[in-house]
Amino acid sequence: MDLAASPLAQPFPDMPAIEGVTLRVARAQYKEWDRCDLTFVELAEGTSLAGVFTQSACASSEVELGREQVQTGTARALVVNAGNSNAFTGFRGREAVEAIQTQVADRLDCAASDVLVSSTGVIGVPLPKDKAREGVANALTAEPCGWEDAAATINTTDTFNKGAHASAMLGSTRVELCGIIKGSGMIAPDMATMLGYIFTDADVEPQFLQELLNAANLQTFSCITVDGDTSTSDTVLVFATGKAGNAQITGWDSPGADAFAAALNDVCRNLAQLVVRDGEGASKFITIRVSGAVDDDSARRIGLAIANSPLVKTAIAGEDANWGRVVMAVGKAGQPADRDRLSIGFGGVWAARDGVPVDDYDEAPVAKHLKGQEIDIAVDMGMDTSGTGGSATVWTCDLTHGYISINADYRS
Amino acid sequence: MDLAASPLAQPFPDMPAIEGVTLRVARAQYKEWDRCDLTFVELAEGTSLAGVFTQSACASSEVELGREQVQTGTARALVVNAGNSNAFTGFRGREAVEAIQTQVADRLDCAASDVLVSSTGVIGVPLPKDKAREGVANALTAEPCGWEDAAATINTTDTFNKGAHASAMLGSTRVELCGIIKGSGMIAPDMATMLGYIFTDADVEPQFLQELLNAANLQTFSCITVDGDTSTSDTVLVFATGKAGNAQITGWDSPGADAFAAALNDVCRNLAQLVVRDGEGASKFITIRVSGAVDDDSARRIGLAIANSPLVKTAIAGEDANWGRVVMAVGKAGQPADRDRLSIGFGGVWAARDGVPVDDYDEAPVAKHLKGQEIDIAVDMGMDTSGTGGSATVWTCDLTHGYISINADYRS
Repeated sequence: MDLAASPLAQPFPDMPAIEGVTLRVARAQYKEWDRCDLTFVELAEGTSLAGVFTQSACASSEVELGREQVQTGTARALVVNAGNSNAFTGFRGREAVEAIQTQVADRLDCAASDVLVSSTGVIGVPLPKDKAREGVANALTAEPCGWEDAAATINTTDTFNKGAHASAMLGSTRVELCGIIKGSGMIAPDMATMLGYIFTDADVEPQFLQELLNAANLQTFSCITVDGDTSTSDTVLVFATGKAGNAQITGWDSPGADAFAAALNDVCRNLAQLVVRDGEGASKFITIRVSGAVDDDSARRIGLAIANSPLVKTAIAGEDANWGRVVMAVGKAGQPADRDRLSIGFGGVWAARDGVPVDDYDEAPVAKHLKGQEIDIAVDMGMDTSGTGGSATVWTCDLTHGYISINADYRS
Repeated sequence: MDLAASPLAQPFPDMPAIEGVTLRVARAQYKEWDRCDLTFVELAEGTSLAGVFTQSACASSEVELGREQVQTGTARALVVNAGNSNAFTGFRGREAVEAIQTQVADRLDCAASDVLVSSTGVIGVPLPKDKAREGVANALTAEPCGWEDAAATINTTDTFNKGAHASAMLGSTRVELCGIIKGSGMIAPDMATMLGYIFTDADVEPQFLQELLNAANLQTFSCITVDGDTSTSDTVLVFATGKAGNAQITGWDSPGADAFAAALNDVCRNLAQLVVRDGEGASKFITIRVSGAVDDDSARRIGLAIANSPLVKTAIAGEDANWGRVVMAVGKAGQPADRDRLSIGFGGVWAARDGVPVDDYDEAPVAKHLKGQEIDIAVDMGMDTSGTGGSATVWTCDLTHGYISINADYRS
């Protein structure tokens, strides 16, 4: 089925080339479609690698191998297959991934472990080795392409191409960070599969790059949800080619470490929000700010409980300032809470404070806010007696008939 | 709004009177509706009490008081208010409950702590004391009524009246257990509120009654889900009047303890399943059997992860044997799992075994099964290497456009 672009779609940004990163796309014909479905990224020698992966106990071979590969901290190539996730395919699936690694490693004269592979799409069908071999061969000889072509090629049922860019000054050296992502488009029997790739010309030592990615992930990709269903293939990788010529960033004391971390965080947050904006059936982008929790982790868990509540999400779809459902979601989060200290607001207006509805609550500005596309929900837990309360911001979308149509009405 | 009866509705069963239990209903007019909305149950002196409540951190005053009251193990009356949940109403809500307790205790000449109160409906509005007082006064002088009238009066947006009955032989004494329940009908700004009450003429010591209820709850009410959203008011109470004349059951060694436990479990399971059958928008009743997990608790958590997955629930709504989504849900459950030992089946036919699709998988009988109203999903985790693997059965319904319509399209 062809889906209309999400009403929350954003235009693809202008993104500069990154020295040491060469993008190519090709057709492997994993499905019978008229589009490129294999992305091949060649990376300069000496590229640092960091990555975070799904915590699914049923992860794909690509994820299992990727978890090992990030330990080495180096990468020379990335291959992304769209149309077949190769998940739940046992040893045959693993062989298909290893065949791709060998084919690329032979060509680039590098270790197979320096070739990262991701796959997204239908599950339970081993990635066909012959199509992959042909696709990789096509990609190796293809003309280089731009960011939007690469972003489009990793998509499956996404409704728009998603990219984000940031720059940072490391001392007097300007570095660029470009990221692409796909996700939240699902169609039976595909699964939600979020794949994100960030490329930078900065020189960053792999272990510290991993530390920065872990921190950024916790505040960005780990703070979004569309429907609470976790994919078997979720992957975010960062590649740092080091071609910008900065003194290598090895820790927080390195010049520009803060600036680079901020830029990385910025790109991660933008990419994460784009996934939400392409959430299945989404008509509203919801930002949930939780404050006054016992700590940041507790705040994030409360935020996600609210963001995953079908009753909260349907209320927002119905433009209903239903703070009672927010109370319910806070109550079920399994986190320290005191009903009589809880405050809830929409669009900057408190509807309930300290456990009771606000006496002179004026619903008019709230009703107006809820008619918009960008919805703000504020929750103050009131557990912050020492002034050191935890906070978190979580992003999600509403739950509409569109979600049901995409996931129930159409058959695989 | 008036909802048509669920396609999964079942007729109200014939249920005998229970000696020591007198049912009455009255109008308190908590909402502007033409129906009774206050249920008053008078219980004989010496009635044993047990109860389980929501684990919400934002529970209502009724639940907070109820948690204390079950410690005493005795009850003389139950009042259920429909149309106002009295949740998130601070001290004013608590005062309203205490006023009801005092009014009833004065009339029955009992302790206020022997009067149980539940409320269900709109939240954030303190239960109006004047309407409650008038309603209780009406109920105290009303003619006794039957089970179905009581079941109808505790309903809010439920689409059918729900009751269950079982008998047990305690030695030569026959005892009866009758239960009524409401739940799973939600309409903005109401919340999912499951209230269940079980009455028996058996003589059961309160602490042991609580032990039996806890055990039954774990395998019944704790094994159902409609949308994963936990109410602030969920309550299940058991009242045992002791009028049957059996020798008091005080522990597993008492004559008939096993028979009584089995009957209690039976009533609880029937009531729990009726709630799922009235799940919002439900068109299919889904039974999920998990075996081969590391223990029973792990199996239950895996079952609930599957039952709460919107992707699994929409797949069933779409009559799609999408075992890939079941793999996904198993993977996100946070429980010990091995992708390559996992088997998944529908309607008695394995679709995938030991981590790979079944080679000669015949989808025809599965497709036929999925067109029915009663859907079976089997998951064998394969973690049962010692032959002592954990298992659990969980019940849920599918996720349809009806759920979105009920919770998003209609405004409070």
